[in-house]
Amino acid sequence: MRILVTGGTGYIGSHTCVQLLERGDEVVILDNLSNSKKEIVDHIETITGIRPVFYEADILDEDALERIFSAHAIDAVIHFAGLKAVGESVHQPLRYYHNNITGTLTLLAVMDRHDCRKIVFSSSATVYGTPASVPINEDFPTGGTTNPYGTTKLYLERILTDLHTADPRWSIVLLRYFNPVGAHDSKLIGDNPNGIPNNLMPYVTRVAKGILPCLSVFGDDYPTHDGTGVRDYIHVLDLAAGHVAVLPCLDQPGVKVYNLGTGIGYSVLDMIHAFEKANGIKLNYKIAPRREGDIAEVWSDPSKAERELGWKATRTLEDMCRSAWEFETNQN
Amino acid sequence: MRILVTGGTGYIGSHTCVQLLERGDEVVILDNLSNSKKEIVDHIETITGIRPVFYEADILDEDALERIFSAHAIDAVIHFAGLKAVGESVHQPLRYYHNNITGTLTLLAVMDRHDCRKIVFSSSATVYGTPASVPINEDFPTGGTTNPYGTTKLYLERILTDLHTADPRWSIVLLRYFNPVGAHDSKLIGDNPNGIPNNLMPYVTRVAKGILPCLSVFGDDYPTHDGTGVRDYIHVLDLAAGHVAVLPCLDQPGVKVYNLGTGIGYSVLDMIHAFEKANGIKLNYKIAPRREGDIAEVWSDPSKAERELGWKATRTLEDMCRSAWEFETNQN
Repeated sequence: MRILVTGGTGYIGSHTCVQLLERGDEVVILDNLSNSKKEIVDHIETITGIRPVFYEADILDEDALERIFSAHAIDAVIHFAGLKAVGESVHQPLRYYHNNITGTLTLLAVMDRHDCRKIVFSSSATVYGTPASVPINEDFPTGGTTNPYGTTKLYLERILTDLHTADPRWSIVLLRYFNPVGAHDSKLIGDNPNGIPNNLMPYVTRVAKGILPCLSVFGDDYPTHDGTGVRDYIHVLDLAAGHVAVLPCLDQPGVKVYNLGTGIGYSVLDMIHAFEKANGIKLNYKIAPRREGDIAEVWSDPSKAERELGWKATRTLEDMCRSAWEFETNQN
Repeated sequence: MRILVTGGTGYIGSHTCVQLLERGDEVVILDNLSNSKKEIVDHIETITGIRPVFYEADILDEDALERIFSAHAIDAVIHFAGLKAVGESVHQPLRYYHNNITGTLTLLAVMDRHDCRKIVFSSSATVYGTPASVPINEDFPTGGTTNPYGTTKLYLERILTDLHTADPRWSIVLLRYFNPVGAHDSKLIGDNPNGIPNNLMPYVTRVAKGILPCLSVFGDDYPTHDGTGVRDYIHVLDLAAGHVAVLPCLDQPGVKVYNLGTGIGYSVLDMIHAFEKANGIKLNYKIAPRREGDIAEVWSDPSKAERELGWKATRTLEDMCRSAWEFETNQN
């Protein structure tokens, strides 16, 4: 297939591009480089031996999208592009709603004009809000998001569903990610956010490297096995493989929803200790107060994806911790 | 105050402009004329003796908004502009989401840049979805909208609330309209949609005038007093007065929500018979199957607006029916 990957130089996007190229798909990347670097394109080429087509452009730029769809007969879009920092979204809601929602509306309108109606959308477990129980399956109610980032994911799921209602030719897959961590074995691509990381693992690796002084563990009085928050961490290579696994779904019009997680919950302290053990490093961390909006425990029931797609996460927590650290130590 | 009225030549917008001008506010109208005519500006001048400033422009046009805010020191915005046809929204979701959501995001960004952070937003009772009971007060849960039009109102309420969370200088009033009908006593402005009307009253008046052959009453087996759907019809002059009544709220930053309704529910057959009686006309109507997504009965608890704003609807159903017909007969 000829696939447009928006946000293709980002963390999950770049790993997905590698797997698409390795299995023989043609890849066209669009990224505005707001949270990634152009060298990722070189790294993708180094890993796969194939240079993807790259456009430095924004999904808000309708003319750029028009040029890309005119230049390439795109079969399907994997749509990663979007702002994703939870805390920032609270302070900059207009920017988040505009980038994520208007950007996606712009992309969809151009796709429609070019008769390309197949899209895989990067959603998030955050659409479940505070779940009534764990593990979470895809039939759980959505809503109750606590920040504009999560709300954009929730709203875009609805907008895409309404689009399919209006025009049943659309094939739409909504992928609800749990917590991606880890990096490619080449050490060339991984989670390398600009600025202070928002997520646990890149924060951990930067503390380990001495770039940041100390890791704050937000809350140790949650009703979990050690009091710290429990999440479903999934290796980014497994997550990327999930995107490849859903592509056959696009042959059938409809709206499909899958959790991409491991089904296993690890606490923040589990992660810290696993990282220390896997890499032989002591991490400087401290317990800090709970963060508003954080939930005690979230993990997936990933069985629908296994049942319907034959996809399942296979990498261990040790794989995640080791590869994340190898990637970090390979950065300048 | 100097007030920008987006959608100011539309049905509710034009009546609100009249009342603002009559009490001495300066009015700047922005309208793209997608569902109204430029002559409305003349009619507003005829009624009030004052010609409002008029810009034919779209809320999606950031440059036009910039020019307007640069040319006029706008104190507050009353934001009516938006697409509003429920059925059309189901078939054209991208257009509705883009116009209503992106348009509002564009407006808000320009307002913010010009230090104008006071806005009255046209929301709708549709944000309550299918209410658990009637009458509906402002504390009822929102959600469960059944079409993209309603969903844009729901989402914009949340976006505006998130905006206030991010920047507490904003003053935001969300007005949830029930079913506006009727027209100005001058017969010059009223509900005059382009094309086939989506709402009951303009359909009624066009059937009465012979422009349309027959009125369909969708469902006569609802659990209501006569089996037809019950709604809270409110005279547009009362609704416009509600907008004037909330303006003092804008002096205090915050997010305020008010229902604008009468608190009285009338059925479709009640309306038909009231129209026939008020105007001495027989209406050609027939019973048709229920429409998907329609709710049996919806009416407001409007007591919060009376308690806090001193506003209350005063016009009768007869006023609504007579003025609507007088307006229709005055059209070419």
